Amino acid sequence: MVNDAVTAARLVALDWGSTRLRAWLLGQGGAILAERQNGDGASVLAGGAAAFENALVTLAGDWLEMGMPVLACGMVGSTHGWREAPYVACPARLDRLHEHLVEVRTTAALHLHIVPGLIAETGDAPDVMRGEETQVLGFAHALPALADGACVLMPGTHAKWVQLRHGAVESFRTRMTGEVYALLRSHSVLARLMPRDDDGWHADAFEAGVQAARRADGADLLGQLFSVRTLGLTQRWPADALSDHLSGLLIGHELIAGLRTAQGPIALVGEAALCARYVHALEVLGVTPAGVHGNTAIAGLWQLAVQAGWVAR
Amino acid sequence: MVNDAVTAARLVALDWGSTRLRAWLLGQGGAILAERQNGDGASVLAGGAAAFENALVTLAGDWLEMGMPVLACGMVGSTHGWREAPYVACPARLDRLHEHLVEVRTTAALHLHIVPGLIAETGDAPDVMRGEETQVLGFAHALPALADGACVLMPGTHAKWVQLRHGAVESFRTRMTGEVYALLRSHSVLARLMPRDDDGWHADAFEAGVQAARRADGADLLGQLFSVRTLGLTQRWPADALSDHLSGLLIGHELIAGLRTAQGPIALVGEAALCARYVHALEVLGVTPAGVHGNTAIAGLWQLAVQAGWVAR
Repeated sequence: MVNDAVTAARLVALDWGSTRLRAWLLGQGGAILAERQNGDGASVLAGGAAAFENALVTLAGDWLEMGMPVLACGMVGSTHGWREAPYVACPARLDRLHEHLVEVRTTAALHLHIVPGLIAETGDAPDVMRGEETQVLGFAHALPALADGACVLMPGTHAKWVQLRHGAVESFRTRMTGEVYALLRSHSVLARLMPRDDDGWHADAFEAGVQAARRADGADLLGQLFSVRTLGLTQRWPADALSDHLSGLLIGHELIAGLRTAQGPIALVGEAALCARYVHALEVLGVTPAGVHGNTAIAGLWQLAVQAGWVAR
Repeated sequence: MVNDAVTAARLVALDWGSTRLRAWLLGQGGAILAERQNGDGASVLAGGAAAFENALVTLAGDWLEMGMPVLACGMVGSTHGWREAPYVACPARLDRLHEHLVEVRTTAALHLHIVPGLIAETGDAPDVMRGEETQVLGFAHALPALADGACVLMPGTHAKWVQLRHGAVESFRTRMTGEVYALLRSHSVLARLMPRDDDGWHADAFEAGVQAARRADGADLLGQLFSVRTLGLTQRWPADALSDHLSGLLIGHELIAGLRTAQGPIALVGEAALCARYVHALEVLGVTPAGVHGNTAIAGLWQLAVQAGWVAR
């Protein structure tokens, strides 16, 4: 720890998801002074509030002693987290999100606030997010023109399609693309034909998957999945191309469904390699995304602290 | 073993799938004189032909000593089975299937034939079956009117939709409904909200799943899956109804896609409880199946032996 950095510190920002706890020490303007992380995710910790407080002290106790505000987003605010931060209903204005922060006061005089998740009534069922709202806020603050009417696509285990309008999250939809891929890749009959290490990139097999999804107009996924097996059995794709074909098929199905209702430009926010796959698939479908952005959670946490008046802009 | 039964025996019939070996001693007219089974499935056995022969002798050595013909269907004929029985291309006439039986002669003078699977070029990729062709033959022989132009729907891990026309399998399509259900039910985020033992039947939650699939016109399965979680989180369905909702959603998506191309009446062949779910879902979609039939593999194996001239009709 550099003393100068600590002196300039303004905020402890936490992205506290299901499986990881990431902490940043932020200085003036949201500059990152230091960062740390470990595996104490919200779904890993058991034992209620004490376990969460203990985990935070273990990772960043020296930062906490400085008495700065601490702001956390993610599953830490779920019913099984440190303290439930009730979902805010959509449409949800991003410049008002700080009004719904939930304060946690602990015996150790730690002043922590938790960012609420969002809930949307979309179609047949409600949809929920926790953590992505903070990334969307960071994105929207950096790119106010897009905040007026873009669709933010956040690939991942549970991909989020977030429709922005006039600075608010109008609605959103979650698609389980990443989780379904991981299950099929590791545990299904499709995995049997795939080498365990197939790190190569087979653009042609990936594109064929996207195109198959398009030809089916986003329907019959359960039927198309079996083709990953038969294309391997009949050696029309080499074994090490099958996982890319499966990836293209699933991302293709996601995009066909998502593009049907998305409005405005599509902006990608997420991990670079995964976003690159989405850009590739979008190109196959003739769509050019408005941009690709890395994790914007830190910017979002800083912006919330600005909105709450804890730090100067 | 009753001596009279052995005296009357005409055929040893084997349904040798991935995970189980089932054997029947059949008498005149295909009557079942005895049956046995164990877990020596084709994907369980390692060690090539010797392992298969050993497994068969272990289960039914006394039957084999009588010198009767032995006929096997299923994964025993795959590339990783006892002997590969090459796929027969669709359209495949059921009354000619016996011409493609593959003979296996062993050192022990065992005379075994293996039923070939079928391959169909359907849409983007080939599709394959092994074992179901024998069930379809048994079905078609029992119900010749339906063999002229029904669609046989065989629910299961890998559900088969088999289009019959003029006594031939014109084409077919596999849908991975059962396997995807099992993966999501046991290993996904959706499983977390489901009690381990939820054997009750929630018709309303199941029907709502089918209806959601219909409203989406069979598209956006990846999006609809997440609603199983949110409907549980928001307690719109009780926890023990969520697996039925998931089941309805997946079967609904399968049916919407399958009914789009199926021609003629729909006949169900398969395990009774699972077929009952499909009948229920079909009713929600306004379709009345032409009938529900149990496993017709035994009848199919007998009919193949008749066609081959090994046994009298």
